[in-house]
Amino acid sequence: MKAAVLYGPRDLRLEDVAPPEMGPDDVLISVRSVGICGSDVHYLQSGRIGDFVVRDPMILGHETAGVVVDVGANVKGLRVGDRVAVEPGIPCRTCEPCKTGRYNLCPDVRFLATPPVDGSLCELIVSPADFAYKVPDHVTLDEAALIEPLSVGLHACRRGGVTAGSTVLITGAGPIGLTCVMTALAFGATRVFVTDLQEHRLRKAEELGATAALVVGKDDVREAVLELTEGRGVDVAIECSGAERALHTCVQAAKPGGRVVLVGLGADDLVTVPMVHVATKELDLVGIFRYVYTYPAAIELVSTGRIDMKKLITHRFPLEEVHKGFEYAEKGIDGAIKVMIEVG
Amino acid sequence: MKAAVLYGPRDLRLEDVAPPEMGPDDVLISVRSVGICGSDVHYLQSGRIGDFVVRDPMILGHETAGVVVDVGANVKGLRVGDRVAVEPGIPCRTCEPCKTGRYNLCPDVRFLATPPVDGSLCELIVSPADFAYKVPDHVTLDEAALIEPLSVGLHACRRGGVTAGSTVLITGAGPIGLTCVMTALAFGATRVFVTDLQEHRLRKAEELGATAALVVGKDDVREAVLELTEGRGVDVAIECSGAERALHTCVQAAKPGGRVVLVGLGADDLVTVPMVHVATKELDLVGIFRYVYTYPAAIELVSTGRIDMKKLITHRFPLEEVHKGFEYAEKGIDGAIKVMIEVG
Amino acid sequence: MKAAVLYGPRDLRLEDVAPPEMGPDDVLISVRSVGICGSDVHYLQSGRIGDFVVRDPMILGHETAGVVVDVGANVKGLRVGDRVAVEPGIPCRTCEPCKTGRYNLCPDVRFLATPPVDGSLCELIVSPADFAYKVPDHVTLDEAALIEPLSVGLHACRRGGVTAGSTVLITGAGPIGLTCVMTALAFGATRVFVTDLQEHRLRKAEELGATAALVVGKDDVREAVLELTEGRGVDVAIECSGAERALHTCVQAAKPGGRVVLVGLGADDLVTVPMVHVATKELDLVGIFRYVYTYPAAIELVSTGRIDMKKLITHRFPLEEVHKGFEYAEKGIDGAIKVMIEVG
Amino acid sequence: MKAAVLYGPRDLRLEDVAPPEMGPDDVLISVRSVGICGSDVHYLQSGRIGDFVVRDPMILGHETAGVVVDVGANVKGLRVGDRVAVEPGIPCRTCEPCKTGRYNLCPDVRFLATPPVDGSLCELIVSPADFAYKVPDHVTLDEAALIEPLSVGLHACRRGGVTAGSTVLITGAGPIGLTCVMTALAFGATRVFVTDLQEHRLRKAEELGATAALVVGKDDVREAVLELTEGRGVDVAIECSGAERALHTCVQAAKPGGRVVLVGLGADDLVTVPMVHVATKELDLVGIFRYVYTYPAAIELVSTGRIDMKKLITHRFPLEEVHKGFEYAEKGIDGAIKVMIEVG
Repeated sequence: MKAAVLYGPRDLRLEDVAPPEMGPDDVLISVRSVGICGSDVHYLQSGRIGDFVVRDPMILGHETAGVVVDVGANVKGLRVGDRVAVEPGIPCRTCEPCKTGRYNLCPDVRFLATPPVDGSLCELIVSPADFAYKVPDHVTLDEAALIEPLSVGLHACRRGGVTAGSTVLITGAGPIGLTCVMTALAFGATRVFVTDLQEHRLRKAEELGATAALVVGKDDVREAVLELTEGRGVDVAIECSGAERALHTCVQAAKPGGRVVLVGLGADDLVTVPMVHVATKELDLVGIFRYVYTYPAAIELVSTGRIDMKKLITHRFPLEEVHKGFEYAEKGIDGAIKVMIEVG
Repeated sequence: MKAAVLYGPRDLRLEDVAPPEMGPDDVLISVRSVGICGSDVHYLQSGRIGDFVVRDPMILGHETAGVVVDVGANVKGLRVGDRVAVEPGIPCRTCEPCKTGRYNLCPDVRFLATPPVDGSLCELIVSPADFAYKVPDHVTLDEAALIEPLSVGLHACRRGGVTAGSTVLITGAGPIGLTCVMTALAFGATRVFVTDLQEHRLRKAEELGATAALVVGKDDVREAVLELTEGRGVDVAIECSGAERALHTCVQAAKPGGRVVLVGLGADDLVTVPMVHVATKELDLVGIFRYVYTYPAAIELVSTGRIDMKKLITHRFPLEEVHKGFEYAEKGIDGAIKVMIEVG
Repeated sequence: MKAAVLYGPRDLRLEDVAPPEMGPDDVLISVRSVGICGSDVHYLQSGRIGDFVVRDPMILGHETAGVVVDVGANVKGLRVGDRVAVEPGIPCRTCEPCKTGRYNLCPDVRFLATPPVDGSLCELIVSPADFAYKVPDHVTLDEAALIEPLSVGLHACRRGGVTAGSTVLITGAGPIGLTCVMTALAFGATRVFVTDLQEHRLRKAEELGATAALVVGKDDVREAVLELTEGRGVDVAIECSGAERALHTCVQAAKPGGRVVLVGLGADDLVTVPMVHVATKELDLVGIFRYVYTYPAAIELVSTGRIDMKKLITHRFPLEEVHKGFEYAEKGIDGAIKVMIEVG
Repeated sequence: MKAAVLYGPRDLRLEDVAPPEMGPDDVLISVRSVGICGSDVHYLQSGRIGDFVVRDPMILGHETAGVVVDVGANVKGLRVGDRVAVEPGIPCRTCEPCKTGRYNLCPDVRFLATPPVDGSLCELIVSPADFAYKVPDHVTLDEAALIEPLSVGLHACRRGGVTAGSTVLITGAGPIGLTCVMTALAFGATRVFVTDLQEHRLRKAEELGATAALVVGKDDVREAVLELTEGRGVDVAIECSGAERALHTCVQAAKPGGRVVLVGLGADDLVTVPMVHVATKELDLVGIFRYVYTYPAAIELVSTGRIDMKKLITHRFPLEEVHKGFEYAEKGIDGAIKVMIEVG
């Protein structure tokens, strides 16, 4: 089968590889749609993310949807022909995090396109049946693939405690920040403020329902947020940019007793935090690592029209043009936000 | 000033009474809109609710909005002319529930139109300034009055943990049940099933966004819910009817680990519960008593258009026709759901 | 191997059966100590518990400790010779409860000595390695077997939110009630009140640290609790008797905002609850089904001496005298509380 | 009356001042015991803590116990002669934090010995009756005064979710760190590891029940903690030293899904945090500001002997020797941990 295989920095090859083998609890999926994620681009650029280094050739891609073409002997609940969204991280199912509802923290999790595990930018993948979620007919496979990034926003809003009537600040209006805008609104947030350096991203945020868009460097974000909230601050701040300064803004803008959700990670491990704010306002700073058991709710939100992930899709390329797709995603060519690779 | 004073069962009199006196932390409010609640009707019928007995003449009404006409010496944040929604229960501010965020459970709470405290069906009332919440100009005073019943739905959804993607069953489609439909949707619920004996109430529920309407006695509600949820059950069931049978349905329809919220109270104290379900599904049955600190979020939901309480209003009468208003509310004349009394 | 096999009501046979077969993720355990639980006695008496009916011969016993005698090919972390406490319920690991930290609610859980799954009153059992927990050398195998009933108390205290300074009421002083006394104290409860019909059980409760023992039928329990708490009520009430009247006491004695934990199940499914209390005090009634991920903490509590489960052990019999052991447990002969069967 | 009044850095004067005046909801308290806190020492040294500057002469002291000598007209529940522990922070009772159970975050809180509010190192103070908590006869007034620092530990353990079987790391073994050791144990923690630079403080920690004492700079704390927990990490880390390096240790030593509680504040606002740990382990970093509604539980823990705060008291001086008391506390003379000033 054809696959987009990364051999090292800037060495992505479209080539023929052996198809995967399935076990009795698995389904075999004909991949149809794969979204390009920032982490895919990062692997392409550097051949690594932090301690995860691409040593052997690895297929990229982990935002995946497709059609079931074979089912293992033990599989119930899925049939050949089912259209599925694929959750890319498979935990060990036996450790403390797995048994306590936080399987995303399993130390032995195997995650698509995280070395040494192959990803989904190829024609066929295998998934344990319980990590392939059937989507209704009216949900497109592009939308199904984007259940993955939507999951990040969903998990962030859950960990942040966003609820009906919440006021939320989101710093960073890239694909994840924009997803968080939509998700926060779906959780009932009534005021969603977004910051970014780039005005065109902020326009997109407003299109998606953000109630205020603040330009970093132009607006005094902290002051603006306090003014927008009559001095109260926000219930929840979701940091999606990875910028230290944005984290400071989140901490400063949070209300007493508020929560700051740390989605974005920058280049440096050590990041400064204004601790006097954290202490005197008794903030909760909550880390985020991927997501856990978000697919059913995310599919509900998409299939009922509460969230329209299609609004983030700007470009589609066939697998044959995967290099072009990565170029658009990396450089933001032609206003690219979310680039989809259509397979088969 | 004019007031609708209850002297005993079926003895409601519109008469002149002395206006209330205010203290330095209070505001004086010219009442403009008061919703008639089921409890007002109940006092009119029986002169009591449970242990609360109307012994001395008492003004009815507690769903209140008006305009500030005087402010006490210590008051900040409110000015003459401000349009306000009035939270009717004033706690002692010193006991354990008051200090731990559950002031609705204060044993010394004073609640409008709960004996011996006068209500708001009159021209002027006094409120501590911090229990009178300013509403934006575009929110009508009818909507402001209905922040009170909306609070019940909001509190029920909070205590029930309704969130984005939740599946919710609401038993009973009276004013509170219908409010819960709207509130659950505002919390991000994607499937809201409603039951009632009366089809016209269910039509209203559907109008408000309910995704399934089940007629008690005609549909097998439990079976229908299990079918609608592919056998899984609902995340949250909110019992709003006060019927024992409906409570059984809630318990039976809740998913393993689900929550059942007890909003409706019937005539009897002792109610049977199917305990095997409660145990084997490890349900949480959560009691509800009014609401606590709901006004700011409720006003947000109304002012941003997330919830349109006006859809519940079927009739308006001036204070002079308060008897007629009660008659419509009690008998459901002309499809009455929520009857408003306009004062002044 | 020898096993205590139940063929039907009152038909328990000690006989030779084929030893179990293990898979690559399993360990084979030489059983050494098994506690007799009320449910074992119940199966002996009736051949069933609710919908669970013993149709084919079934080995009894599920409170188990032993020594690892073989390990499967994939097993890490356990070795031959390790002394282990065995968690008896094995979930499917793939469903919603399994993935969200509530695997005790897995609909496909296989639980020792719950039809049609054989129990542990035999010489050899097989367990998935991750459900066999190594205990330190200084913890006896009797104590290790009693990690199972301790888990019920631990789970009840967790779900009840018992914490440092809590006031707790426990209704029923059988083995589970007594375990809850010790567990509540280990969670930091400072006042633990216990009720029972039988004075000798209450003496035991006092021995274990209960701060007040109330005789049902002699003391006015509700009044006594209110007096003991200066009218405030208890933070948490844990119902362990299965008696409707005790549940009423729990609901009446709980403080506003308190929690009532439902551990005991009586003969009837439909149980009355005083709903006015539940509503006006906004109680949480929480169901309990076994326990989830309690073994590590329970072993900690035992191995550090915080809880001494040995204090519950009144009798020990070899497997050959299993009938006598059941007779003592069933009839409470010679003050029997917890009867252990020593195997091998 | 006599009072210890701070006029500026190093300018503490024992002088006569006018006694305070009480209102109808207050009690007048004859002060008997006051603990010297690190913040008192800090004000003495610098005349300020952060933005709180002593501009006008201010009485120091906020860890207070005494005897009620007069009660206001509205006061119920306290009588002349009652021995009380005094909670030093009085909130406004009307704002969002006050109404939602987090009154410690009230922006208008008035806190003893925080400019411009006078403290309790004097003969008479006034307190709202509901912030003066009666203690049982067998609790000494020194212990009653130390309910205040105990409250910090209690709040930290609550916010940290310490519970039965928890493994806890506490960095810093000063008075607050030592209090946290005792509190964590009272919450049921079974392993409590403590770090400090000074060995004599660690000996004290061990005396109080710490299960491991690690010398910063000598032991590799992170490695030691991982070894002590078989690689798992701690459930909760409580940072009490204010040292950036200790915060790093806490973040590194926390288990996946663990919580880090930030009690200590250093000199700098901006503190670095190892964010990759926070993200990949999905930690919760929780700020702490004083405490909220801890007095009843803290008094329970002391009066039942669960926590013996007397073990922290090393010195006692009469009010006349307040300067000497401060010198001992500041310099740690003669192994001083907690220095008490006895008044009257």
